[in-house]
Amino acid sequence: MSFNIELIGFLAAVLTTVAFIPQVYKVWQTKSVSGLSLTMYLIFFSGVFLWLVYGLIINSLPMILGNSITLLLTSIILYFLIKSKGTN
Amino acid sequence: MSFNIELIGFLAAVLTTVAFIPQVYKVWQTKSVSGLSLTMYLIFFSGVFLWLVYGLIINSLPMILGNSITLLLTSIILYFLIKSKGTN
Repeated sequence: MSFNIELIGFLAAVLTTVAFIPQVYKVWQTKSVSGLSLTMYLIFFSGVFLWLVYGLIINSLPMILGNSITLLLTSIILYFLIKSKGTN
Repeated sequence: MSFNIELIGFLAAVLTTVAFIPQVYKVWQTKSVSGLSLTMYLIFFSGVFLWLVYGLIINSLPMILGNSITLLLTSIILYFLIKSKGTN
């Protein structure tokens, strides 16, 4: 039972992490962030950063790994969003 | 110390939940999902659903509340994304 619960948590972490790959791919391919909310990604990035801090404090490897990757993926989207604001 | 850790987790949950409000607002206002990845939101929605199941099993109120709200917010974005695919 406990194993199954952790499996659900692990699968959830994988899904909410890899979810950002197709969005990064779309931004990278089109070189466009049209339609994406800068505010969303700024708040989300801050939240994921805090989840990473939380994971480091409680020493949870899935949280540390998952949130590090999500932080990296969302920072790519944020880079394009901020660059696009600068040229507008 | 333990209180501060839970405060970080709580703040992280609030941020990664409310982050989707400006994106929902943008989609709602512009009635456009241009630039948003349907694949991202399908995978993310599935992941948040599993986080909600996980929260229900371990009986974590912040996880249940946070993930329910995120599920609601991302389902609005998904609605517009799927509707837009249908008209394309």
